[in-house]
Amino acid sequence: MKLTILFGGASFEHEISIVSAITLKEKLSNFDLTFIFCDSDHTFYLVEASKMKAVTFSKGEHKKMPVLTLAQGAFVQKSMFSKSEYNSVVLNLIHGADGEDGTIAALLDFYSIKYIGPRVDACTFSYDKRYTKYLCEAIGVKSVKYEVMHKNEHCNIQTPYPIIIKPSSLGSSIGVSIVKDESELDYALDVAFEFDDTVIVEPFLEGVKEYNLAGYYANGAMHYSIVEEPHKEEFLDFEKKYMDFSRSEQVLTADVSEELTLRLKTNFEKVYRGLFEGALIRCDFFVFNDEVLLNEINPIPGSMANYLFEDFAVSLEELSSSLPHSKRPKVTYEYIHSISQAKGK
Amino acid sequence: MKLTILFGGASFEHEISIVSAITLKEKLSNFDLTFIFCDSDHTFYLVEASKMKAVTFSKGEHKKMPVLTLAQGAFVQKSMFSKSEYNSVVLNLIHGADGEDGTIAALLDFYSIKYIGPRVDACTFSYDKRYTKYLCEAIGVKSVKYEVMHKNEHCNIQTPYPIIIKPSSLGSSIGVSIVKDESELDYALDVAFEFDDTVIVEPFLEGVKEYNLAGYYANGAMHYSIVEEPHKEEFLDFEKKYMDFSRSEQVLTADVSEELTLRLKTNFEKVYRGLFEGALIRCDFFVFNDEVLLNEINPIPGSMANYLFEDFAVSLEELSSSLPHSKRPKVTYEYIHSISQAKGK
Repeated sequence: MKLTILFGGASFEHEISIVSAITLKEKLSNFDLTFIFCDSDHTFYLVEASKMKAVTFSKGEHKKMPVLTLAQGAFVQKSMFSKSEYNSVVLNLIHGADGEDGTIAALLDFYSIKYIGPRVDACTFSYDKRYTKYLCEAIGVKSVKYEVMHKNEHCNIQTPYPIIIKPSSLGSSIGVSIVKDESELDYALDVAFEFDDTVIVEPFLEGVKEYNLAGYYANGAMHYSIVEEPHKEEFLDFEKKYMDFSRSEQVLTADVSEELTLRLKTNFEKVYRGLFEGALIRCDFFVFNDEVLLNEINPIPGSMANYLFEDFAVSLEELSSSLPHSKRPKVTYEYIHSISQAKGK
Repeated sequence: MKLTILFGGASFEHEISIVSAITLKEKLSNFDLTFIFCDSDHTFYLVEASKMKAVTFSKGEHKKMPVLTLAQGAFVQKSMFSKSEYNSVVLNLIHGADGEDGTIAALLDFYSIKYIGPRVDACTFSYDKRYTKYLCEAIGVKSVKYEVMHKNEHCNIQTPYPIIIKPSSLGSSIGVSIVKDESELDYALDVAFEFDDTVIVEPFLEGVKEYNLAGYYANGAMHYSIVEEPHKEEFLDFEKKYMDFSRSEQVLTADVSEELTLRLKTNFEKVYRGLFEGALIRCDFFVFNDEVLLNEINPIPGSMANYLFEDFAVSLEELSSSLPHSKRPKVTYEYIHSISQAKGK
């Protein structure tokens, strides 16, 4: 299968996107892959497969590679006398800003380029943790109680300690702290507000169980990965998460009952249907006091959560043959015509 | 003031965007205006002010005009030996799809072009009426009760007749019907499902009062228009709304108490703050049984609701000097560097 892997982006998760792309290069070795790198200044570069190494980008070697621009239906490489088009289905693998905030989705929609990844509205509801809470409330999926704090606004936190402080719109544990008591609060808030003007406060739930489930909709049905119980210390710090994005070995199914697996899938489907079609997402759930709570939606999970699928290559092929069609309305000028006629012009 | 008016778009509201742009050309005659037309095939054209007439576009004359492309910081006109840049603040005046669904916002964000208009997340919450309801619920703004119907899914409507049927994601009354009893239902649903796969069902509230209020945030404060009580028949049909988009005469303030005006403004601010900064929006409210209900958010109102402002040109100047800064994260390669060093590579 032909597939374009789009990675990089002007994001705090730029580097882990590179790691994800390198991981998928190995995992999808039977695919005909094109690699397009989005630099932090929003220039697109065509990267030869043999150059897909982390140091290529950290050393800036990509800047000597062919620049691509967006055109209707394709990324295009133009030279004085020729034009090459790269028009295979794109896998949006830009984590964090650009990739998960709706920017890349809108760009690819505008230029009618087919892609695997969340659409614009799905990005809004998953990129900002506040909006994930709004979604949960509206569709009847439980999540952890929360408070919102805004930069430069005084706010008394009502949640009893210990609490978790998270920037509202970042993934990969960036800027996240567990705060055991008030003495640690100011520092944790400073850290979180470095990354976002809005911060989410949640209770830290002692003894919570964590389960991850990935899935997608294709050929008229939901398809799920195995359920994983992630190894966790207090929580994964960024460096550990970074390494985590290079995972490619399939993991073992968590030791969970059929009944719980079904509840996780039911909650996943409620979140997914009508919003995430076209994307392979991972939902991270908590189980606490026998309740399933949605913790986070990863609309572009690290290395696409490939390690949770029995046959990841087949999953991607299924998904890419079931992408949503964006209908572009046909423009007529009937009102202008009828009004011009009425005016006799 | 220099301002670029971006209009057109691949949208059912393409024509009314043209009308809006022509109206603003008259209204902003003291501005230094650039006109950029987005055709339904997503090509951008530079339109001379003297050609800003509806028939220019209905006759396809724009196709002979200079084509512009997007580059960092500007729309660019390239010829063999030269390059002209159009980099003034953009007023996003594309109504409906493209303009109000987040596509144009994302494009302008990606290319670091400053613009007046809703950002991507604000578009998600205003373009789809379901998501406006989610927002209302989350921020404590009342709205009319509703049910959601999906195409090809059987669903018993619980709301008692008369009801209103609306496509979930269109403005300007397109596809909207009032249904008095069951005999009219199937036809109304067919019409609505022509435009969207999701349809909203609401009770038709007899004797409801309607009030429109526009506003924006600039220089550290909210700025409001007068309150308008729109003339309505049962509701405005598309052709009437179309004419409505060419309004430029200031209207009279509705006969409402100070107390109600304040309640409308309080609700407006709850909707606006933290989400719509950078945009001048119009909120359409119902007052029913002494309750203020949000009916609709127009994130790019027809002709920018210029007729509701005392000095519309000054309002636009204020707003354009208070646009949100999008922070683009600085990309470092510290993790790749540290890991490469640890590996001795």
